[in-house]
Amino acid sequence: MHVVVPFAAETPKTRLAPVLAPEERSVFARAMLEDVLTAIEATGHETTVVSTAPLERDAARSATVVVDDRPLTAAVNARLPTSREDEPVAVVMADLALTTTEALERLFATGGDVVIAPGRGAGTNALVVRHPEFRVDYHGGSYLDHREIAAEIGADLETIDSFRLGTDVDEPADLVEVLVHGTDRAPACLRDLGFELDTSDGRVGVVRVEDAVSSERRSESK
Amino acid sequence: MHVVVPFAAETPKTRLAPVLAPEERSVFARAMLEDVLTAIEATGHETTVVSTAPLERDAARSATVVVDDRPLTAAVNARLPTSREDEPVAVVMADLALTTTEALERLFATGGDVVIAPGRGAGTNALVVRHPEFRVDYHGGSYLDHREIAAEIGADLETIDSFRLGTDVDEPADLVEVLVHGTDRAPACLRDLGFELDTSDGRVGVVRVEDAVSSERRSESK
Repeated sequence: MHVVVPFAAETPKTRLAPVLAPEERSVFARAMLEDVLTAIEATGHETTVVSTAPLERDAARSATVVVDDRPLTAAVNARLPTSREDEPVAVVMADLALTTTEALERLFATGGDVVIAPGRGAGTNALVVRHPEFRVDYHGGSYLDHREIAAEIGADLETIDSFRLGTDVDEPADLVEVLVHGTDRAPACLRDLGFELDTSDGRVGVVRVEDAVSSERRSESK
Repeated sequence: MHVVVPFAAETPKTRLAPVLAPEERSVFARAMLEDVLTAIEATGHETTVVSTAPLERDAARSATVVVDDRPLTAAVNARLPTSREDEPVAVVMADLALTTTEALERLFATGGDVVIAPGRGAGTNALVVRHPEFRVDYHGGSYLDHREIAAEIGADLETIDSFRLGTDVDEPADLVEVLVHGTDRAPACLRDLGFELDTSDGRVGVVRVEDAVSSERRSESK
């Protein structure tokens, strides 16, 4: 199994704009990526981060980084198996901040020409491709299209039932999940940025309180 | 294992009010309940629906219905084990429309004094209680409180990683998940009410089109 992790290095996580500035989104996206890579590393599979731009990262981690500025679908399809002899390829999104090694091992161990961990909104959050003709088509509702594509080529498609793999972090409401179930750097990053859980209205949300940096800046300007 | 399914029979699913009238919410909530009961039935465990009001339902299904109009937390706590000799009790919410027998079997087979299938927003969507001192406290963020309660009494708490059990159907956006991953009556009910998936803006949502009933009514009034 070869694991591919696509990463949008340049303007990541734009839907978090209501709560995070561009530079903060970039730092948070990298924290999520590192948590995903840590979870993959413990499965023992070789990993390639396919980044839209050069990426400086902790060299201690074993993943290789390649730059491919094509759109997601093309960049992934260029790396899928083309024959039955090719190694299977797994594609794991870089914003699966709740990913654990255990969840990934369950995904990798599930047999099938194509195995999908669906996310909310019919997304394809992670998948394994063993069939040489299967190609992805990422966009809204890709899980539905991937089912059709698999059916067209006679590939059997399995799904894996995982809350952790099913939760991608796109919108402000998703930050709750990172603070509750996140594993390492991503929740730490949010706490550093001043986010904490808020249960004041009877449901759990996040609230951003005075963070260390801005409070420091304010003291300096006094 | 005894399975308890709490059901709010009177004004269910109020957060779906933007898209469903009260009578429709009631029909949809009952469809979800029946799908949940079908999934439980195949696990072979005895089931009690704890309903806030008398409930007419398909007598062919094996679940017993009892009426208990206390708030959810009290009604559930009255049914949890009080000694180590008592049978373990599982509590499965009636709005887990994506539930399958397989997901429940994974929950029931997980060892631990308390086992939780967390939902979005730190909810406790399903749990198994084997510890005689554990008591629930349902409200926003109950998963966090249940972890604390377990720690206080020295009970070990396990979680189960399930997208199906982690998805409760509360809000209009959740209807997408029912249409994509629902098992039987709940998606059929939504389709009967005129709902279908909508991918026109690049993400998957639901749209309510002309439904059979209203179109019939309109013809009659011509």
